[in-house]
Amino acid sequence: MSKVHQMRSLITDDGWLEMSFVEMDMPKPKADEVLIKVMATPINPSDHGVMFGAADISQATSKGEGFNRVLRAPIHASALGRMKARFGQSLPVGNEGAGEVVAAGESDAAQALIGKTVAAMGGAMYGEYRCVNVQMVLPLMPGCTAKDGASSFVNPLTALCFPETMRSEGHTALVHTAAASNLGQMLNRICQADGIDLVNIVRKPEQVKLLKDMGAKYIVNSSDDDFMAQLTDAIHATGATLAFDATGGGSLASDILSAMEAAAARTPGAYSIYGSIKHKQVYLYGSLDMSPTVLNRAYGMAWGVGGWLLPNFLAKAGMETNIRLRTRVAKELKTTFASHYTDEISLPDALDADIVKRYNAKKTGEKFLINPTL
Amino acid sequence: MSKVHQMRSLITDDGWLEMSFVEMDMPKPKADEVLIKVMATPINPSDHGVMFGAADISQATSKGEGFNRVLRAPIHASALGRMKARFGQSLPVGNEGAGEVVAAGESDAAQALIGKTVAAMGGAMYGEYRCVNVQMVLPLMPGCTAKDGASSFVNPLTALCFPETMRSEGHTALVHTAAASNLGQMLNRICQADGIDLVNIVRKPEQVKLLKDMGAKYIVNSSDDDFMAQLTDAIHATGATLAFDATGGGSLASDILSAMEAAAARTPGAYSIYGSIKHKQVYLYGSLDMSPTVLNRAYGMAWGVGGWLLPNFLAKAGMETNIRLRTRVAKELKTTFASHYTDEISLPDALDADIVKRYNAKKTGEKFLINPTL
Repeated sequence: MSKVHQMRSLITDDGWLEMSFVEMDMPKPKADEVLIKVMATPINPSDHGVMFGAADISQATSKGEGFNRVLRAPIHASALGRMKARFGQSLPVGNEGAGEVVAAGESDAAQALIGKTVAAMGGAMYGEYRCVNVQMVLPLMPGCTAKDGASSFVNPLTALCFPETMRSEGHTALVHTAAASNLGQMLNRICQADGIDLVNIVRKPEQVKLLKDMGAKYIVNSSDDDFMAQLTDAIHATGATLAFDATGGGSLASDILSAMEAAAARTPGAYSIYGSIKHKQVYLYGSLDMSPTVLNRAYGMAWGVGGWLLPNFLAKAGMETNIRLRTRVAKELKTTFASHYTDEISLPDALDADIVKRYNAKKTGEKFLINPTL
Repeated sequence: MSKVHQMRSLITDDGWLEMSFVEMDMPKPKADEVLIKVMATPINPSDHGVMFGAADISQATSKGEGFNRVLRAPIHASALGRMKARFGQSLPVGNEGAGEVVAAGESDAAQALIGKTVAAMGGAMYGEYRCVNVQMVLPLMPGCTAKDGASSFVNPLTALCFPETMRSEGHTALVHTAAASNLGQMLNRICQADGIDLVNIVRKPEQVKLLKDMGAKYIVNSSDDDFMAQLTDAIHATGATLAFDATGGGSLASDILSAMEAAAARTPGAYSIYGSIKHKQVYLYGSLDMSPTVLNRAYGMAWGVGGWLLPNFLAKAGMETNIRLRTRVAKELKTTFASHYTDEISLPDALDADIVKRYNAKKTGEKFLINPTL
């Protein structure tokens, strides 16, 4: 029986991250599963946590060639406590990807997919082959390649679920940080198509230009001296009371809430020590900044900050919403949901210390694609 | 026409807090209003914000006697920006109180209250007389004095609304901080009567003893070296995923979420980088600690922190719930909802700088009552 390889992340009892490849038998699909030959699988920010835990990647080293390559890095001492539950567990990685269905279980749904190019979400995608339940598979439209479909789930569904969350929680406009990212660009296309006002927060002038060229109306640069005034103006113009923040740490969430409160205070009314009554919410869906979130609470009492995770939201949203959103992704894969990749690398490349340091920098707009057939 | 006095809080354009009494005509009730001779009105933590804004009370001075007394204190320079909306506005203070109905408007509901001892919530209670709409009035049961009923709204309804929030958001047990406070003692009596598990967080051994003597089962002292272990044990035993925090600032909210996450991790299951799935929530309903809230986010993605304000919750809860809760307060005023006061002072006393410094210390379990008839 032929052997295949799968990337693994291990945290050793003595506090080291060890990433490597395991050799395993070719997986065999169960009745409702298909076997996918993985041809394209992106490295998303949401993969970094599983891959690297709290390791200090600046100290990473790698040795060995091909599938014998091993990457090692020390775990930050301060994080060892909360990494304990992972000690000694060899975890597969890679949330999503795309490829060709080369075998299928006996069910009709599985058999119907043989030979098709499909996207899939199911973890353990950083490998040559992967068995996935048909429910986690999205058949691509004719003319779409595996590379086109590699990022069909995480970013597209996240971007679609921001307006879904907005509507379900009674808000009417959105604020988004790290807004020039692949995800941010998708969100701009969705909001423009659906007529939703979106305030884009970026950090650099070239990101302002990129979004302006896409037709974005509200763009605020957090590096500008008058950032808070710009942000308050944009929030006042849009009436946004909901924000999604990719950075997580520092004072950005608090600054957004302060700007929402200042915008609300522009509407004439009696002063209230308890602040504006409309609920103001910031969801932290990423952790680009690993430092603590600092909230100064200078925005009255009607506010919330919390984590936001796509699978949790989709589980609450129900099957009908899930199908509606996935159908839209398949139809608009090369337009609304087009992804751009900085570089395409092999599986062993993905454990090369120098390359890891490049993609771990998580620069806005940069994204790496693993092609296991290279 | 006879003149009456009302306490006012003013922030001057040059950054000073100025508290004083205004002399005004005896108010005249409209059709649906009653005129209450105020006999007892508590100084709650929720009154401090309106009274003192961001003033530095350690530098407060007072001069003058009786209703000519004026209290002055400088505003913290760092807070002047967000106090701007208050500049030049003379605000009445005092959220709640009790007294005798000495006149009433022509409506039947108002007329029926003449001569009754009632509690009222409606602001501007720090004065000798106050007109209030009958909807904001709670007639006391026979045998209850104005002092018994002075704190009928803020603490009792807040304590009752914690379990209401718990049920409406799908939680089954509670964590409460500053748990030896008047409010915390009420919450213990409610939870014991209603069979709700409550984790009490206090700061001192004598507070542990006080709550233990009341029959509290889970009491954790945040000054103990093994606080986090104690807290995790108590949260694991109760399954609490909702906390109400009176302190607001610092890391306590984050510590509670960390303990909830650690408690969840004790239930066997695969390691998940995204943390436990059950939503964990901390509501900040007070701000005893004015420093920023610091969240380390070491508790996965299913968590939230936010402000919680009684009037906002009651507005959402609807009339039926409001009536049910008020009826319970009236019936259990001398048992479940009994309040204890450290000192009873006159209106002019409440603006004496030395006395202000005492009640502004906001020590757990200490509460001052203003008696405008003194």
